[in-house]
Amino acid sequence: MGKNLTSRSEDYSKWYNELVVKADLAENSAVRGCMVIKPYGYAIWEKMQAELDRMFKETGHQNAYFPLFVPKSLFEAEEKNAEGFAKECAVVTHYRLQNDPDNPGKLRVDPDAKLEEELVVRPTSEAIIWNTYKGWIQSYRDLPLLINQWANVVRWEMRTRLFLRTAEFLWQEGHTAHSTKEEAIAEAEQMNDIYAEFAQNFMAIPVVKGLKTESERFAGADETYCIEALMQDGKALQAGTSHFLGQNFAKAFDVKFTSKEGKQEYVWATSWGVSTRLMGALIMTHSDDKGLVLPPNLAPNQIVIVPIFKTDEQFEEITNVVNHLMKSLRSKGVTVKYDKRDTLRPGAKFAQHELQGVPLRIAIGTRDLENGTVELARRDTLSKETTTIDGIEDKVVVLLEEIQSSLYNRALDYKNTHTTKVDTFEEFKDVLENKGGFISAHWDGTIETEDKIKEITKATIRCVPLDSVNEDGKCVFSGNKSSKRVLFAKAY
Amino acid sequence: MGKNLTSRSEDYSKWYNELVVKADLAENSAVRGCMVIKPYGYAIWEKMQAELDRMFKETGHQNAYFPLFVPKSLFEAEEKNAEGFAKECAVVTHYRLQNDPDNPGKLRVDPDAKLEEELVVRPTSEAIIWNTYKGWIQSYRDLPLLINQWANVVRWEMRTRLFLRTAEFLWQEGHTAHSTKEEAIAEAEQMNDIYAEFAQNFMAIPVVKGLKTESERFAGADETYCIEALMQDGKALQAGTSHFLGQNFAKAFDVKFTSKEGKQEYVWATSWGVSTRLMGALIMTHSDDKGLVLPPNLAPNQIVIVPIFKTDEQFEEITNVVNHLMKSLRSKGVTVKYDKRDTLRPGAKFAQHELQGVPLRIAIGTRDLENGTVELARRDTLSKETTTIDGIEDKVVVLLEEIQSSLYNRALDYKNTHTTKVDTFEEFKDVLENKGGFISAHWDGTIETEDKIKEITKATIRCVPLDSVNEDGKCVFSGNKSSKRVLFAKAY
Repeated sequence: MGKNLTSRSEDYSKWYNELVVKADLAENSAVRGCMVIKPYGYAIWEKMQAELDRMFKETGHQNAYFPLFVPKSLFEAEEKNAEGFAKECAVVTHYRLQNDPDNPGKLRVDPDAKLEEELVVRPTSEAIIWNTYKGWIQSYRDLPLLINQWANVVRWEMRTRLFLRTAEFLWQEGHTAHSTKEEAIAEAEQMNDIYAEFAQNFMAIPVVKGLKTESERFAGADETYCIEALMQDGKALQAGTSHFLGQNFAKAFDVKFTSKEGKQEYVWATSWGVSTRLMGALIMTHSDDKGLVLPPNLAPNQIVIVPIFKTDEQFEEITNVVNHLMKSLRSKGVTVKYDKRDTLRPGAKFAQHELQGVPLRIAIGTRDLENGTVELARRDTLSKETTTIDGIEDKVVVLLEEIQSSLYNRALDYKNTHTTKVDTFEEFKDVLENKGGFISAHWDGTIETEDKIKEITKATIRCVPLDSVNEDGKCVFSGNKSSKRVLFAKAY
Repeated sequence: MGKNLTSRSEDYSKWYNELVVKADLAENSAVRGCMVIKPYGYAIWEKMQAELDRMFKETGHQNAYFPLFVPKSLFEAEEKNAEGFAKECAVVTHYRLQNDPDNPGKLRVDPDAKLEEELVVRPTSEAIIWNTYKGWIQSYRDLPLLINQWANVVRWEMRTRLFLRTAEFLWQEGHTAHSTKEEAIAEAEQMNDIYAEFAQNFMAIPVVKGLKTESERFAGADETYCIEALMQDGKALQAGTSHFLGQNFAKAFDVKFTSKEGKQEYVWATSWGVSTRLMGALIMTHSDDKGLVLPPNLAPNQIVIVPIFKTDEQFEEITNVVNHLMKSLRSKGVTVKYDKRDTLRPGAKFAQHELQGVPLRIAIGTRDLENGTVELARRDTLSKETTTIDGIEDKVVVLLEEIQSSLYNRALDYKNTHTTKVDTFEEFKDVLENKGGFISAHWDGTIETEDKIKEITKATIRCVPLDSVNEDGKCVFSGNKSSKRVLFAKAY
């Protein structure tokens, strides 16, 4: 199975597409641009959801659910937001099908069931949510309102790729309301920090925290915070965004509150989200030519155990030992699966688990039973060792932590060595062409320069890093004055 | 707050609608027939999801995700299913909006962005899933395929009610594929049993397990198993269904497998689902004129603690005791919330928690501190007692179990006393009119009789109970021969 995977050096894009399908993560569906998330891929997404949901709740957020549809008149209320998403909206215009008189057995849209007002399938939920918040917020006592939603959204993208860009995707979207600007900004920053922490501690992906430039900002936001990650091919991937929305939606939907001082004021807002796109980031950061590599903190199975036997009696003996071992591994909080399928040979099982990125594999044969040993294989380094069963639980726990931090350190090292300071445009183009990665360069702060650099090189400003220091410099393109370096890259 | 609730005897339907809104469970949205599930309501749904998900996984099912949209040509492939849902389908016809030249600042559907093939927003996912399974199933080795999906679905209902009947609702839908008819039937029965177990052990709702008659069957099913519950107003509510789909979808989508014997055979199928409708059942089974009553196993907070104080110093003293108490309650697995809001008086807090159905309330005042006591109030019986803090954790655990079983027993008693055997149609009409509940009566097995009874009385056959015994009898309407009693009722 793994053998058939195109190598990364040969064609990175093809490698990715093949890997997603062969590792049973997702596949294209009969609906243009929409994917089917297969059980193994969905199990990883569920682990992500569980951790993020815990982090949201620990910071005081509650989940709720808002309608899938947004009436057109609400959708267009916040003009910038509407303009930003109008070109990719799926629109429901009718609410009934009927038998097609010209084609027996076929259906057609019932022309008499046209909606008075068209419904937009949510590309994001600010409009429907702020229209709802209007009824929930009267006084400062109702604030802050800290709500998150797990949902599907639809953006009709022309070019789609599994997980990275799909017409329908799954995500969470937080929508909060505050009585002051400062509190809303602090919330937007906090949630971006949570995304960074999640990426680093669970996905083992180092990220740069930063602010988007005006042209890359979310439609309707005053400021967009983001986390940017770097993939193995030197392209950047926006992994999460957190928006300070100012009073834009409060004004569009007339949401005011009575302050402690008895004044009527517009509410301040944030929204923030991560999506199944994170799956793409996870895959592209760690995986290799043999297949997926999963960090233990997000692996549906951290260990798989494969028995190697010839007779039923041997199988039974091995299974007795394995049952005991699984019990003690589980008591240490390790997730383990016993692959006792009788339809596959051990070699085929090894290949499958390698392709699917299971962090550790234990193989037990009859000779192992005699010796009190097992074969222990690491997915990240592809190394194997023979080790005693006695005390293996503790060893495994240490190893899983080691794999988790080793994956992170490898990715961090890649990111660091692929972040290049450049001071001339020649150098800029050279690095972009021959090395890739983030380019740290001075920029004069104008949209014109940003656009021209994009036009010439296809690189965009990924973010103004939050930790960017003030230094006098000259714009890498225009030569005009600049006080800060920003990060450029080609991006997904 | 609670005082404003219409009483059940006055207007049960109005009581329900008010309760859902006032207890902060859900509200109507700007989108016709679509609801907003508010944080408190959603927290209950999350507890339901967690338990059901665990039960599904323990029986070998995995979660996955399939597209929201179903191309019309796939939707119509299984004709009965398509016919059953065609009249309530939301249809996406366009994929873009544009600026409306006649109305500056407004948007309109871009006439150039018409889809070649319309997309149905899934009312249920058999079509898109079986079209996908075609690629996943080749051999008996690929079976059984045991998959569940948590998702939103849309059915354009004309008359909607919060939770009970909404245009969009949340649900889970299991879709399994099997190599034999027997195995598929066993799966459909197993999932119906799981629903019954969940209703009884978590929702504290006794249910009747049964089979639907042909006219009440799911469109596309060979057999529909169901669980039926009885609400306090004597109306029945279908709380879950599990369908044996025969080979209908396998034939419609040409899904065959190679059997062990090397033959090509069509695959056997089931599908099964429960939805946010369960919230309606939960509310209507237990709640009273003061508001919601929640079984402890599904309450977001099993206990709420309210401090009663005048000075900051008193508050601090109470809080010290409460923090200690919460820690030891949590160590026993009890979920507890400390309501220390300074914007509400104790009386208002009591009313709110009563309205929201928190099973137990603990109030602690300064005199309690001196005496080492608290006031402990039960939501189900509305009784109060003063009890010592010492040993209260164990008392609370016992009480929560007692409340859970007491709610179940009360509902069971209601169901039993409201299930009436009748042998004449006069009696049938009399019981239906004056007592309500399930009517156990003989039926001749014809659709004509079923339709006529429905026409005359509005009662439908809820199910043929699985435990219905064979006995010679005469149809309550036609007088024709019958071998079994079935359950009639007016239903939600």
